[in-house]
Amino acid sequence: MPTWTLEQVAKHNTQDSCWVIIENNVYDVTEFLSEHPGGAKIILKYAGKDATAAYEPIHPPDALEKHLLPSQHLGPLDSTAASKVIEQQQTRKKTKDELRVEEAVKRKPPLSRILSLMDMEDVARQVLSYKALVYYSSGSDDEVSYTENSRAFSRFFFRARVMRPVSECDPSTTLLGYHSSIPVFVSGSALAKLGHPQGEANITRAAGKTSLIQMVSSNASLSAQNIMDAAIPSQTLFFQLYKHRNDEIAEKRVREMDQLGYKAIFLTVDAIVAGNRERDIRSPWILDDQEKGSVPVWDENNPTGEEADMGGIAGGLVANDDRDMTWEKTIPWLRKITKLPIVIKGIQCVEDAVLASEAGVDGILLSNHGGRQLEYSLPPMEVLLRLRQQRPDVFDKLEVYIDGGVRRGTDVVKALCLGARAVGLGRAFLYAQSAYGEAGVLKIIEILRREIISAMRLVGATNVKDLKPEMVERVDWQSFIPAKL
Amino acid sequence: MPTWTLEQVAKHNTQDSCWVIIENNVYDVTEFLSEHPGGAKIILKYAGKDATAAYEPIHPPDALEKHLLPSQHLGPLDSTAASKVIEQQQTRKKTKDELRVEEAVKRKPPLSRILSLMDMEDVARQVLSYKALVYYSSGSDDEVSYTENSRAFSRFFFRARVMRPVSECDPSTTLLGYHSSIPVFVSGSALAKLGHPQGEANITRAAGKTSLIQMVSSNASLSAQNIMDAAIPSQTLFFQLYKHRNDEIAEKRVREMDQLGYKAIFLTVDAIVAGNRERDIRSPWILDDQEKGSVPVWDENNPTGEEADMGGIAGGLVANDDRDMTWEKTIPWLRKITKLPIVIKGIQCVEDAVLASEAGVDGILLSNHGGRQLEYSLPPMEVLLRLRQQRPDVFDKLEVYIDGGVRRGTDVVKALCLGARAVGLGRAFLYAQSAYGEAGVLKIIEILRREIISAMRLVGATNVKDLKPEMVERVDWQSFIPAKL
Amino acid sequence: MPTWTLEQVAKHNTQDSCWVIIENNVYDVTEFLSEHPGGAKIILKYAGKDATAAYEPIHPPDALEKHLLPSQHLGPLDSTAASKVIEQQQTRKKTKDELRVEEAVKRKPPLSRILSLMDMEDVARQVLSYKALVYYSSGSDDEVSYTENSRAFSRFFFRARVMRPVSECDPSTTLLGYHSSIPVFVSGSALAKLGHPQGEANITRAAGKTSLIQMVSSNASLSAQNIMDAAIPSQTLFFQLYKHRNDEIAEKRVREMDQLGYKAIFLTVDAIVAGNRERDIRSPWILDDQEKGSVPVWDENNPTGEEADMGGIAGGLVANDDRDMTWEKTIPWLRKITKLPIVIKGIQCVEDAVLASEAGVDGILLSNHGGRQLEYSLPPMEVLLRLRQQRPDVFDKLEVYIDGGVRRGTDVVKALCLGARAVGLGRAFLYAQSAYGEAGVLKIIEILRREIISAMRLVGATNVKDLKPEMVERVDWQSFIPAKL
Amino acid sequence: MPTWTLEQVAKHNTQDSCWVIIENNVYDVTEFLSEHPGGAKIILKYAGKDATAAYEPIHPPDALEKHLLPSQHLGPLDSTAASKVIEQQQTRKKTKDELRVEEAVKRKPPLSRILSLMDMEDVARQVLSYKALVYYSSGSDDEVSYTENSRAFSRFFFRARVMRPVSECDPSTTLLGYHSSIPVFVSGSALAKLGHPQGEANITRAAGKTSLIQMVSSNASLSAQNIMDAAIPSQTLFFQLYKHRNDEIAEKRVREMDQLGYKAIFLTVDAIVAGNRERDIRSPWILDDQEKGSVPVWDENNPTGEEADMGGIAGGLVANDDRDMTWEKTIPWLRKITKLPIVIKGIQCVEDAVLASEAGVDGILLSNHGGRQLEYSLPPMEVLLRLRQQRPDVFDKLEVYIDGGVRRGTDVVKALCLGARAVGLGRAFLYAQSAYGEAGVLKIIEILRREIISAMRLVGATNVKDLKPEMVERVDWQSFIPAKL
Repeated sequence: MPTWTLEQVAKHNTQDSCWVIIENNVYDVTEFLSEHPGGAKIILKYAGKDATAAYEPIHPPDALEKHLLPSQHLGPLDSTAASKVIEQQQTRKKTKDELRVEEAVKRKPPLSRILSLMDMEDVARQVLSYKALVYYSSGSDDEVSYTENSRAFSRFFFRARVMRPVSECDPSTTLLGYHSSIPVFVSGSALAKLGHPQGEANITRAAGKTSLIQMVSSNASLSAQNIMDAAIPSQTLFFQLYKHRNDEIAEKRVREMDQLGYKAIFLTVDAIVAGNRERDIRSPWILDDQEKGSVPVWDENNPTGEEADMGGIAGGLVANDDRDMTWEKTIPWLRKITKLPIVIKGIQCVEDAVLASEAGVDGILLSNHGGRQLEYSLPPMEVLLRLRQQRPDVFDKLEVYIDGGVRRGTDVVKALCLGARAVGLGRAFLYAQSAYGEAGVLKIIEILRREIISAMRLVGATNVKDLKPEMVERVDWQSFIPAKL
Repeated sequence: MPTWTLEQVAKHNTQDSCWVIIENNVYDVTEFLSEHPGGAKIILKYAGKDATAAYEPIHPPDALEKHLLPSQHLGPLDSTAASKVIEQQQTRKKTKDELRVEEAVKRKPPLSRILSLMDMEDVARQVLSYKALVYYSSGSDDEVSYTENSRAFSRFFFRARVMRPVSECDPSTTLLGYHSSIPVFVSGSALAKLGHPQGEANITRAAGKTSLIQMVSSNASLSAQNIMDAAIPSQTLFFQLYKHRNDEIAEKRVREMDQLGYKAIFLTVDAIVAGNRERDIRSPWILDDQEKGSVPVWDENNPTGEEADMGGIAGGLVANDDRDMTWEKTIPWLRKITKLPIVIKGIQCVEDAVLASEAGVDGILLSNHGGRQLEYSLPPMEVLLRLRQQRPDVFDKLEVYIDGGVRRGTDVVKALCLGARAVGLGRAFLYAQSAYGEAGVLKIIEILRREIISAMRLVGATNVKDLKPEMVERVDWQSFIPAKL
Repeated sequence: MPTWTLEQVAKHNTQDSCWVIIENNVYDVTEFLSEHPGGAKIILKYAGKDATAAYEPIHPPDALEKHLLPSQHLGPLDSTAASKVIEQQQTRKKTKDELRVEEAVKRKPPLSRILSLMDMEDVARQVLSYKALVYYSSGSDDEVSYTENSRAFSRFFFRARVMRPVSECDPSTTLLGYHSSIPVFVSGSALAKLGHPQGEANITRAAGKTSLIQMVSSNASLSAQNIMDAAIPSQTLFFQLYKHRNDEIAEKRVREMDQLGYKAIFLTVDAIVAGNRERDIRSPWILDDQEKGSVPVWDENNPTGEEADMGGIAGGLVANDDRDMTWEKTIPWLRKITKLPIVIKGIQCVEDAVLASEAGVDGILLSNHGGRQLEYSLPPMEVLLRLRQQRPDVFDKLEVYIDGGVRRGTDVVKALCLGARAVGLGRAFLYAQSAYGEAGVLKIIEILRREIISAMRLVGATNVKDLKPEMVERVDWQSFIPAKL
Repeated sequence: MPTWTLEQVAKHNTQDSCWVIIENNVYDVTEFLSEHPGGAKIILKYAGKDATAAYEPIHPPDALEKHLLPSQHLGPLDSTAASKVIEQQQTRKKTKDELRVEEAVKRKPPLSRILSLMDMEDVARQVLSYKALVYYSSGSDDEVSYTENSRAFSRFFFRARVMRPVSECDPSTTLLGYHSSIPVFVSGSALAKLGHPQGEANITRAAGKTSLIQMVSSNASLSAQNIMDAAIPSQTLFFQLYKHRNDEIAEKRVREMDQLGYKAIFLTVDAIVAGNRERDIRSPWILDDQEKGSVPVWDENNPTGEEADMGGIAGGLVANDDRDMTWEKTIPWLRKITKLPIVIKGIQCVEDAVLASEAGVDGILLSNHGGRQLEYSLPPMEVLLRLRQQRPDVFDKLEVYIDGGVRRGTDVVKALCLGARAVGLGRAFLYAQSAYGEAGVLKIIEILRREIISAMRLVGATNVKDLKPEMVERVDWQSFIPAKL
């Protein structure tokens, strides 16, 4: 294989011939431009140049090998060029946001001071890059569903039972037959490397040590193999499938997961188009303006100004997803290609929960994608209540999970009282690994475990089966919750 | 025809002989003083002087010819006088508010940065003159109905359906048989020239390019002819009639619209008296105080001080309107003079919706005039819900539209789920054309289109007929919505 | 009659011999000390001194002659003393609060700038002495009932009717057969002289000019005779009776009112003990601290510090009131001594409204005393709703009025829709006369008249009989109302 | 007995030999370390040193004698050492928090300025040490139950009755047959010495003078004997039992209380684990950071940093409590060892109230431990309402009390209307004694008495039996309550 100079690469800086450098290797991405889920434009920004810093945090390591032909891998830089790239990276002037993060990292508190998931989120909000923060935290439109997801829990109060023996209290359960030390799982959340160089593996390792189940996103920033490699032998991992519109590609993906040892397929059905996350869409402008110290103004000759990428990061992730799935077609197809249990992620109303049970799937995850997709989708906790009230039989036919808005052990226990088998958290794990890596993830699992056991004992339960619908009451007032919630 | 000097005109500066200059022409308005809908007082302020700047933005170009006899058109200024008027205009010291607007215009962002209708409104609030802003934005009394119109939408959540094929999604519909690319129309809004020199034509042109239907107000600042001239051949325009108390004048108006090619009559019934828009009434004082740098204080000898025009701008617009319309009298009269479809604009309760259907009109627009008329009139979205619940049969007899408080594609989709045929927006179009002219209007249509399609797909609909009442739920809590809503 | 020197008076400065000077006359109040409703302590503060400034604004002119024997009127000061008293008054250093008020009066806006009752209240809050402001504005405890009285109206929305002839609109009505130009009356409010030297007469004169009915408080700062003197011949005045615990004294009072020409007795039943108006109780301290520029601190030897007058001003007013009234005893007693119509002021629940109708009284005023008595008494508008829903027959047996929280014409119209005959306002009239005297009162009557007519027309009513229960709806959300409400 | 030098004591500063000085006496606590409910760590901080200042405010005087063998009491310091300890205490540099408190104490207002319980709390918040304040004021998790306890009262309004003779009004009642001057009792609250050197005795003395019943906590900072000593002969005291997990120890405790003259046992069932009071857990850090003027930051080599005591002060108090109580076992056991009436403290739902009545106990206290234990436990006032609505028969079988969130006489009267026999307050008494000792407690009893009588009269009641369910109404709106509530 040849080696390349920076000058050679630099010549291929157009749509007609577009080369990029990633980790000292040169790739010809000319033909791939039109296939890139995030669009050609973002690649062309790095045409003829080193793209490592932009590429690395949002692509799994196997992305290049998966999407490019061997012939498009042109070979390494020569040693002079490689040194120069490193030198450029090292001497590059830091952005204002990078400098802000550096300062914030120095002021990060010791882990013992983290008493709650909100404390952990506070730290993450300080130490995350602005880009990562808005990708993680943003919801669609005015973030009403995002906000209401957690506010929903504050309308449920306990009817606590006393005079029950609770010195022994076991919060463990099973999901699809797999053991979980607490009724909590990691709900699929993409792009963990945006927050921490080891990305999703931080979560995998901590989950392994604490017997938690992780649902791994199709859009993880590590490959499914990488993540499985971070797991311990007995560890259970589920796979969150964003089904490709091409059935063959999708089938290949499912089979691969099966072989890698993933134990269930969570089919994502609430994200068929990119959510309108305005803070995410705005973030490049905000960083740019901050860097330049100025904002662009309207110009008669160029009234539009720079173009917005209306999909934001999310747009790239779902660009090739199947928008035409149906109960009749998609479930049988999936059943045919895998024996793994199937869970539908993104059920948002009672009717679809019933259809899912009729379609014979193994579980449903009541979710509005953390308020990141359809604005004004009902909070999952409210859907759970309606399902309990209107169709309690569904709970006997499949396992019901919820995610969205969970911050406290009491939230988990409320959901279990209404019949949820387990409760997923997404952002909380991203924040924890961003702030402290694996140790952060272990910390929030410890907090959740402590809070769940405490709440179980105080409502009079010694195991998850003791939690009953009559132990919670949906009240008719909106509790006052502190501002940071 | 003679020409006139400024000195000659200046002599006619009393109630007994009142001349004014408008665009270099001299008019004798002495006899018209008593007929002026906005009152004599405002004209007398300009008696013997040039009134162009005050006159132009709030009158259609044909107003003079319509209201004055040919003999009252006294002829042009002589050239010296004409130059002097121009010189006066050019050397006139700018007001503080004009200077503020000039600065704001310089800081106007490029269009690509406008992601939502709220962003557009933010820009408009900066670049509009204070007078225009308060006329556009104000509601009556304490603006409760204005505020509640939009808050009402935040109590409706979706029961989104998944696993439906939505890659093809068509948001088009028809209104009274006329095609509309999205289920949105321009609801009549007066005095667009206050915000932009080309006024309503900005909206007309953008609507033509995007296949939207515009309902043109009787109180537009362009003539019905001007607006029709801005339309493309196939474009649909409706006419919003403020019926004159004199049936003959009203009939003439309707026939004129018919001949001009307007395709429906929206009879306005919610604005028979001027709404009490206190911010609008106060605006002359605020501008005056700002200019003088002082506020008037109570004086024993003149305890009242300056007199307030309690009708504000709105008062002039409705002064001659018919306050005695009835179902029995007015609808048959209108049917007799036109074959155009008739829509009643301003239905505010179920009972009147039923009466309208019994009166055989073609449509109703549930509206409280954007919260500008009766304070504490129910939000239209709440009226729509009651109509759906109590008299679903009405939806089969006529087309039901709503306006008021719409800011997002999800708002539109919610209304359609409950049975609305289309949703009107008024202020949004005024803000958009004020901020960026036609380009601004195109921008918000693009935003609405994108948001509507996204919401339709995410609730599982591929066309407007798929939107059903069971897809929305009126919840019993008030969502937390960001302050700027 | 002898005349007195200041030295002579000054010797009588103890509980055993207590003389005071009021308007240049010397009174021996030694024996009266124990009977003073406001307590002996406040009088002793002025023992041997001139008490005019403190006495005058809160006592009617006939109070001395009513409560003291002729022998206790010791005669006038001699001329030297009289001059000295005047000199003392003139050279007295103004308090910080007086200086503040003087400045505020200079900045008072002209009347034309007052567009609403809230505007008027804003002015009054500036120009009133702190003592008067807190007496007028305060409610009991945490002022929840005070606040909820007005918030209650914001939960009622109109189901407005259109297409009704409303060019003629007559807002007049009758109360107990007496004409009123609008369905509004002056609800009894005490101590108007605290806000303006002419006190209640300001209201009487304005009411006379506008055909409004004034209910005059037993605790007015003018005598019932003074107020009647300010009325025009045809003017209707009602009397608000705080019944004395001594039936004979009470009877004398009623007969006096009858003879003076008052047309009805409003028997006050919601103020049998002094409301706990903490701001009122605190006001002497606040003024004192402000004057001294320091606050007292805890002293081991005097842990209590100054003593609080826990009744505030209100305490003095009700100290001798009858706490043992009953339906069985009090109504027949009152019927026996007067032929005037009887209205019970202070009904707070449906059950008592029914008892009142069974007791055969002529009317009831649903009132919680403006939130000044029982904290958490239901808002009158909510009581009215319950009465309409549960016992509509009561409206046929007597006239029902409400007061408390009314700020807008729409509030009045809402109450009338539910069956109220008329609506009382109290503080609004006190604020208006405090700010601008009679002209202020005329101004708010004009505002109310305008707002009521506008609301009537916009809901489709041409007279008060057109207002029906089905025109309002109690909604299940709390509207957002601007902070100053 | 020998005496000791400081040097001798100082040598015993390890886990293997741990001596401490408390009030000039030397104790060998080596063997006790493992039994200390608050953990060994906190004792080891003072190993070989004087621990008086830390020990004294949170332990009753008899704690040493109860928990240590006579042989572990090693004898007094010699006189030199004793002087030195006193000198150390006197010359010790005050902490910033101590200096803050000293300043606050100087600014404490005279008692007459305290008009309400909120005023008293305001003073206490100023003069309490930070540690005491957070222990007293904190609730669990986000303090939602704490906040909702008081907000609940604001949803209950009165249907006040008028025309009833109320000049005589007697607010007295009985609890378990014992007289109480008002329907209020002191609910068990621990560690009063944290706020005032005389601790719980302040409350006892004031209760004795005003005929109030005090329920004394197992965790009081005075011994049960000390408190009984502060009582007058006829005074009624109840005992709040935190049952030890060892039945024999618990039995000994109960018998001791019986002999001391306590009149009832309130068995605490809502605090079987330590509540998660995050402000309490954080307080040592906050004080430490404040003292040092710096905050610790994350250190790679010590990522956890200092360890948190996750139980806070509360943890120590409940460490040995019985977590396995049952209706079947615990009530018969208690009945067997005492003839005293039994009340269950901490009932949180209707079902358990019914079980309590079936278990034949004498009373129940509806309580969520002041929002300090299970977050989102229903407010007691809401539980009371449900009990009244669903099982009114329970009120006939036992006495029902509530505590939590009570601030006003109206709160008390509301609870009594719904059937509560009496209402407990805890923090209010702690705040009062912290601010002004016994005089503070007398003050708030006087305030409550005045407010209760006033509310009773204004709702038309002359004694507690007149208060009926139909006099209150649970409304469907949330009242606006001032921020400091």
